[in-house]
Order: sequence, then C-alpha cells, then structure tokens
Amino acid sequence: MYLDIFKIGGNVIDDPATLESFLDTFCQCPERKILVHGGGVMATDLARRLAIPVRMHEGRRITDQETLRIAVMVYAGWINKTLVAALTARNCRALGLTGADGKCIISRKRDPRPVDYGLAGDLMPGSINALFIDSLLNEQIIPVFSPVTCSSEGQLLNTNADTIASAVALSLSVKYKVRLRYVFDREGIICPGSEKPLALLSRLQYLELRKKGIIYGGMIPKVENALEALESGIEEVYVGKTSVQL
Amino acid sequence: MYLDIFKIGGNVIDDPATLESFLDTFCQCPERKILVHGGGVMATDLARRLAIPVRMHEGRRITDQETLRIAVMVYAGWINKTLVAALTARNCRALGLTGADGKCIISRKRDPRPVDYGLAGDLMPGSINALFIDSLLNEQIIPVFSPVTCSSEGQLLNTNADTIASAVALSLSVKYKVRLRYVFDREGIICPGSEKPLALLSRLQYLELRKKGIIYGGMIPKVENALEALESGIEEVYVGKTSVQL
Repeated sequence: MYLDIFKIGGNVIDDPATLESFLDTFCQCPERKILVHGGGVMATDLARRLAIPVRMHEGRRITDQETLRIAVMVYAGWINKTLVAALTARNCRALGLTGADGKCIISRKRDPRPVDYGLAGDLMPGSINALFIDSLLNEQIIPVFSPVTCSSEGQLLNTNADTIASAVALSLSVKYKVRLRYVFDREGIICPGSEKPLALLSRLQYLELRKKGIIYGGMIPKVENALEALESGIEEVYVGKTSVQL
Repeated sequence: MYLDIFKIGGNVIDDPATLESFLDTFCQCPERKILVHGGGVMATDLARRLAIPVRMHEGRRITDQETLRIAVMVYAGWINKTLVAALTARNCRALGLTGADGKCIISRKRDPRPVDYGLAGDLMPGSINALFIDSLLNEQIIPVFSPVTCSSEGQLLNTNADTIASAVALSLSVKYKVRLRYVFDREGIICPGSEKPLALLSRLQYLELRKKGIIYGGMIPKVENALEALESGIEEVYVGKTSVQL
C-alpha cells in the first residue's frame, strides 16, 4: 500500500495562491497521506512586531523561551490549524499534531555543545510513534504535523520539518511503500544549460553537482535528507513542485 | 463507566501554582477524562502588545480576523500545547484539539443579528463527533479541547469553553456516567452568613439566589449551563475547586 508524505515550507505557506493550489492537489491524491509543514515569514514578522531579537547560527535559528513561544503560537497554532481548517473545507478529515499530542514524536533537546541552539529538538531512533500515526491513517484521518516536538520531560522543542518528514516516512516504511515529497516553488534541480529539472539523482551525481556548486546552500541538507531516506528504505523521494507529479 | 470532564479557565491557567496543583490532581483522577480549557490574560496581553483593539459587547468579546488569529495562536497554540506537554511530563498521554481536528466540533458562525460578534462559533445539535472522541478515550488518550471550533466551510471560530464542556459532556452521556467539573479558584457558591459553599443547588434555589443578587455576573451563565447539563442527563456537575472532590 502506498503512503504519500508531503512536506511544505515557507515558500508554499506564505503565498496564498500556491498554497490553495497545493491543497487542491493534495486532497486529490488518492492514497493515504500525511502533511508536514514548516514555518514561514509569519514567525519572523511576529517576533519583529514584539521586538524579540532573532538569533541565528550558520543559517539555523537559536530558540530561546520567547522564540519557542512564537514558534508554538505560529506553527502549532495559526499555521497548523488554518491548514487543518482548509482541509476540512475540502471535505478532508485532518488532525493537527505537535510531537506532544498522543506522544507521537518524542525528541531530545539538542546537545548545547559545540553550539547551543537552545530549545531545539533532535529526533532519535524510536522517536516516532508509528502505531499511533497508523491508527489515524486507518481511520481515514490525515495527520498534519507542525515543526514542534516534545521531550519525555514535557519540554516543547522547535524541530526541523524536513527531518520530521523523513523520520515519519522511515518509521512507516515498514508497512507502506512511502513516497516522500518535498514540495516547493521550483520545478526541481535544474543544471546549467538544461531547461528541465533532473529526472533522477544518484548520490554520486549529487556529490559532483555539489562540488560544482550547482547544488548549494539550503538545498544541501534537503538533498542529503532525501538520499538518506532512499538509502533507508523509502520507496521514492521527490524534490520540487511535486504536486504536479501525482 | 464514569467519564470526568474538567473545564479550566483563566484563573487556573494564569496562576502557575494553581495550574500545577490542578494538573497533579487531574492526572490522579482514575477514570477516563477530558480537559477543556478557556483563555487567560495572555491573549489580551498579546493583543495589547500588537496594538490590536479589544472590542466587547456586554462582557463578550467581538472576534474580528486579527482577534481570531490571536485566539488561535494563544488558545490552540501556546495554552493547548503547553497543557499537553505538561500532561506528557506527568506520564499522561494527551491530545490537543480544536474543533477542526478530526472534524470533532463543527460549529456555525453566530448570527450577526441582533449583535455581530464576528468570528464566534455556536454549537448546534450534532456538532460534537462523540464517536471520534470516544475512540480516543478507548486508546487511553486524554482529549484536551481549546476554545476554537470550525464551520463546515472551514472557518475557524472562537467558541465559549463552558459551552464546549457541556456539549461534549452531553454527547458522551449516552455511553458514560459523566461528571462535569467547572474548576476555578473559589470553593464554590457561598451564601452570606455561611462559611462553606453550597453542597447542592436546585434550579429553584438558583432562581432565588439570583433574585437576591448572590449569584450574579459571570456566575449566571456558568450555573445555567450546569443546571441545563443536569437536566439533560449529565450525572453530576461540580462548580468550584472541584479538584479536591475526586
């Protein structure tokens, strides 16, 4: 049986037309499915309006108590619930989740050495409660994950959505043929001199493209996540406007 | 089989010591249980910091789009998730819900006549998906409801938590002996000249006490909700520091 796991980030969430079109396609997907969402400009915007400084280290946000509160309010509150409501409007039955809900993703606060990222959560083997997620799927419910997890001590933790998507995918690949779809506003990975995105990417090819600087920046962790997922048993991984590839 | 439904509001949520003590007692309750929470000062505080005016009519908040966003962020985001996490820390498995999640409470936008309360949701017969809530209870999960529901068109709506508590109680009273517990920081209803709260209150007694002005203001809808619940088949209703009466 197939299971489609879609991950969307800020470039889909922040643009109403892109989001609507994505949600339409998502609802048409005939298989069992899961939605994982990241953040967007709203958290940064709210922090700015509340005069809470945004601290970063090598492109990654440092989460202090005030920043966590904003992440939980915006990601687990507004974005998660408006997505669930938008799916309701499309006659889909969705259920919004943080890792705390049903203890579905229990993470660990990231080691403060060498860099203290504050209230950031890392997933470990066994973090995902696949049985619970599967029981929702069996009831024809669409789980919608926000990028917030919880430690076993009850500490809410800011967590990377790409990582949640691949960990959930992996945990369910025992039962399902999982297709992991990192959706964003580009067609995919396009090499110079070509008009079309790559149809397939091997690890060898990835290493070459990275050396040449064609795959760079934020694409590196995404592609590495994707390749790792494939190598661990995920059936197919898509990167790009995957909504058109159903 | 007994089902205990606890409702807490701002006076419990806003005071860390009261909240901790309530959660300890809540977790010790041996029966199946549900938590319904209201808001607190945080929403008003956030609105003030964001310079969003709070508009009221006869003690009830008028919910425009900006106010709804704050309600969803604070109630369904921060308060709901910190409660779920606090229950996780106490080894309870909880699941935070708005009405949109699992389509568990589908409400209707309140008629704008005679007073337009904006994005406020009213419950109607059949609003509560009792089967879904019961399936969670059967899995030993504690549903935690925030005061946000959803219309069938996918509009999130601000909804009174007392009303949610009594409607959920009523919908589950077919299967369970439901005890509905409105928890707050007073001992109960105390008449002048008495030190102890009333042990029992009949509708007749209520009408008398209201006429004398002993039951007044915010207590009127609470007691009316409670009496209606009793008259509709709820086993027992408690008002006060019910955490001590388990």
